[in-house]
Amino acid sequence: MKILTVNAGSSSLKFNLISLPEEKELISGNFEKIGLAGGIYSIKINGSKIKKEVDMKDHKVAIELLIKELLENKIINSLDEIDGVGHRIVHGGNKYAKSVLIDEDVIKTVEELSSLAPLHNPANVMGIRAFMEALPNVPMVGVFDTAFHQTMGEQEYLYAVPYDWYENYQIRKYGFHGTSHKYITKVMQEKLNKDNVNLISCHIGSGGSICCIKDGKSIDTTMGFTPNAGLIMGTRSGDIDYSIIPYYMQKTGKTLEEIDTILNKKSGLFGISGEFSDHRDIENAMNEGNQKAKLANDMYVNRIVDYIAKYYVKLNGEVDALVFTAGLGENAREFREAILTKLECLGIFVDHNLNASIAGYLDLHEGLISMEESSVPVYVIPTNEELMIALDTYELIK
Amino acid sequence: MKILTVNAGSSSLKFNLISLPEEKELISGNFEKIGLAGGIYSIKINGSKIKKEVDMKDHKVAIELLIKELLENKIINSLDEIDGVGHRIVHGGNKYAKSVLIDEDVIKTVEELSSLAPLHNPANVMGIRAFMEALPNVPMVGVFDTAFHQTMGEQEYLYAVPYDWYENYQIRKYGFHGTSHKYITKVMQEKLNKDNVNLISCHIGSGGSICCIKDGKSIDTTMGFTPNAGLIMGTRSGDIDYSIIPYYMQKTGKTLEEIDTILNKKSGLFGISGEFSDHRDIENAMNEGNQKAKLANDMYVNRIVDYIAKYYVKLNGEVDALVFTAGLGENAREFREAILTKLECLGIFVDHNLNASIAGYLDLHEGLISMEESSVPVYVIPTNEELMIALDTYELIK
Repeated sequence: MKILTVNAGSSSLKFNLISLPEEKELISGNFEKIGLAGGIYSIKINGSKIKKEVDMKDHKVAIELLIKELLENKIINSLDEIDGVGHRIVHGGNKYAKSVLIDEDVIKTVEELSSLAPLHNPANVMGIRAFMEALPNVPMVGVFDTAFHQTMGEQEYLYAVPYDWYENYQIRKYGFHGTSHKYITKVMQEKLNKDNVNLISCHIGSGGSICCIKDGKSIDTTMGFTPNAGLIMGTRSGDIDYSIIPYYMQKTGKTLEEIDTILNKKSGLFGISGEFSDHRDIENAMNEGNQKAKLANDMYVNRIVDYIAKYYVKLNGEVDALVFTAGLGENAREFREAILTKLECLGIFVDHNLNASIAGYLDLHEGLISMEESSVPVYVIPTNEELMIALDTYELIK
Repeated sequence: MKILTVNAGSSSLKFNLISLPEEKELISGNFEKIGLAGGIYSIKINGSKIKKEVDMKDHKVAIELLIKELLENKIINSLDEIDGVGHRIVHGGNKYAKSVLIDEDVIKTVEELSSLAPLHNPANVMGIRAFMEALPNVPMVGVFDTAFHQTMGEQEYLYAVPYDWYENYQIRKYGFHGTSHKYITKVMQEKLNKDNVNLISCHIGSGGSICCIKDGKSIDTTMGFTPNAGLIMGTRSGDIDYSIIPYYMQKTGKTLEEIDTILNKKSGLFGISGEFSDHRDIENAMNEGNQKAKLANDMYVNRIVDYIAKYYVKLNGEVDALVFTAGLGENAREFREAILTKLECLGIFVDHNLNASIAGYLDLHEGLISMEESSVPVYVIPTNEELMIALDTYELIK
C-alpha cells in the first residue's frame, strides 16, 4: 500500500510517499512560496535531490506538479496506486483524540477550530480540499498534532483561571507535537517490549516540547493552549510571567499583536543571544566565547532539566526511558550531555562515549546513551512524524 | 530597644512594636479603611484584642491614633522610647539587595520603582513620609520584599524574551515574600547550626511562593516579574500560557486591565472552584463531595509538587530541609501530607503522626514532620516577617 502524507501550510506543501507495511519512504518533497513570487520545490528520491524553480499560483498547481513528478519518476504508474492520503492537521481541539477518516463533517469541525490555530487549520483545510479535488477517489485521513495529548486529565489540562474560560472558550492546555511523541511511544513500546511504557519524551528542535507518558498515554506536556508555552525555543519565549505583557505594552505603546509576534519570532534563543535562533550557531558562538550565547544555552538547558524533574516526580520515579528526539535531541551531543549531567541526583547517568557516538551525521543514529547503573535508561530515537501519519492512515483504510 | 514595624497599604496600616534583642512583641495592630467610610482599627496586647470604629481621613490620623494607643496602654512612656521604624517596602527593583536606612535618596528611588509595583510602592512611601513627620528624630529602615532574591543569577532571573526588555525596561524575575524566606533561612541556619544551608522554603498562604535557597542565599523563586507567577494561589492564576490573553480578549472584547484583574482576583482556587479562595473552605467543600473544590485542591497540590521537584534537582538533591510556612504551610495538615506523599520517589517520607501534631491551632506550632529515613528533613516553621523587619532595622541602627 502506498500512502501519501501531507503537511500543508499557507504557502507551502510538504509530502512523503511511504510504502506500507514495509515502512519504506519512496519519495519526499517540499513546495515553497506557493502563491508568491519565487516559487520553488525540491524532491528527494533514493538519496538524490532535485530542485526546481517554478511559480505556483495555488496549492492545486503544486499538487499537479507533485503528481507529475510521481509519474515521471515512475514512483507510481497511475494515480490508482495512491491508496490513501494522511493530512497533518495542527488543531483537533477537544474533538479528536485519534486520527480520523476525513469527510465533510470533519472538515467543518477543523474549520470551526480555526480560532484556536488561526495560522494553521485554514491552511490544512485548503490542503485537504485541493487533494480531494485532485484525488477524488482516494480516502483521506486527518492526523492531529493535539490528538495524542487528549488523554491528559483535567488536573493537567486546566489552567487556574475562571472555569468558564474552559467551558465557554475552550481555554485549556492542548499540547502539540503529539504525532512525534506518539511515534516515540510506539518505538519505545516495541524496543522495550512493553505496552504500558512510562516515558519522558523530549522533542527538542527549533520548536520543542516534552511529553510525560504513563502507560503509553500522554498525561502532561510542556506546550499549552498554544505552542508558545513550556520550553525555551529557537525564537519562542516559552513560559513567562504573563504580567510582563501589560507592563511592556504600557512602556512601549506596542500592540498586543506586535508583542505576540516578538514573543513568537524574536524571543527564545534569538531573544537572549540577540543573534542566533539556531542552536548550532549558539554552540559555535559559545565556543568563541560569546557570553550571551552561553547564557541562552544555559537557560535552555535549565528549562529542559526543570521539566524532566517535574515529570520524573509525576511518574513517581517509575520511568522506563528518557528519550531525546528531533533536531537537537538527535544531534546536539554536548547539549544532551549538559542536560543529563544535571540529573545525576535522580540517579540518571549519561555514558559519555555512547552519547558521543550517536548523532544524525554519524554512523549511529539511535540507541542507548546512559550507563548501565542509570536509574532511568536514556535513549536517542529519531522521530518520524511522516511515518506516524502514514501508519495512522494505513490503520484506518487497510 | 523598641522597634516599630510598619506595613502601609493604600488604605491600611499594620504595625508591631517589638522589643529587641529579646524578640518580644509588645503590641500589634491594624488600621483599615483609612480615607474611606467605615474606618476601623484593632490592637492586640498581651493576647487581648481591642477593636474600635473611627473614620480616619489619612495615614497621619491613623499614626496619631497608633501613638495614642501606645502611650495610653503604657507600652511606651514617651515617643523617645521608639528607637527605630522598619518599613516593609514591596519593590526594591535591582537597587536593593539588603535593607537600608531611609533617606530622601531612598524615597526617591522607591518612588521611581513605582511602575514595577504601582499598587504598593506609592502606599509604602506615603507610610514612610507620614511616620517621618510623626517621629522626625527616629531612624527609619526600608525592608524590601524583593531584596532576598537579588542573589539570583541571570540564568534564573532573565526571561527568554529580547534582552533589551531587561536592559531598557527592567523586565526580569524579581520574586517576592523575600522577608519571609529570609526569616525561614535564618531560623533554619540556627536550628541546623549551619550557615550554608540549602533549603526549599514553601511560603504557602493566600498568596504563595517557593524559594530555592543555596548556601543561605536565594537562587530561584516561583514568583516572577510580578507576584502573579508560579504557584496557584487563592485568587491568582500563577503560571499560564500568556497566549491565552490575546485569545480571550478577542473572544470577549474585555480590556487587558479587566483580564489582569480577573487573573489576580478571580482566578486560582476561586477560579477553578467557582466559590472558594480560602483553602479551609476548599477543604470543607471537598469533604462534602464538591468535585470542583477537589479539582482546585489537586491542581494546587500538583503545582507545589512540580516546583519542589524542580528545586530538588536544582540543588542536586543536596537539600538540608524542606520547610512549610505561612497560613497553609503552618496549618493545613492534610494538604502538607498530600504534597509530601507525592515526593516519595525523591526519598522524602512524611511522618503521619508528627505531621498531624503540628498546626497553629494545636499545642505544637513547629518542628520536624518527616521520618528519620527521609532523604530530606521536612519542617513546619511559623514565619514572622515583622520580626525579620525588626531585626533588620535593629542591625542597621544599633
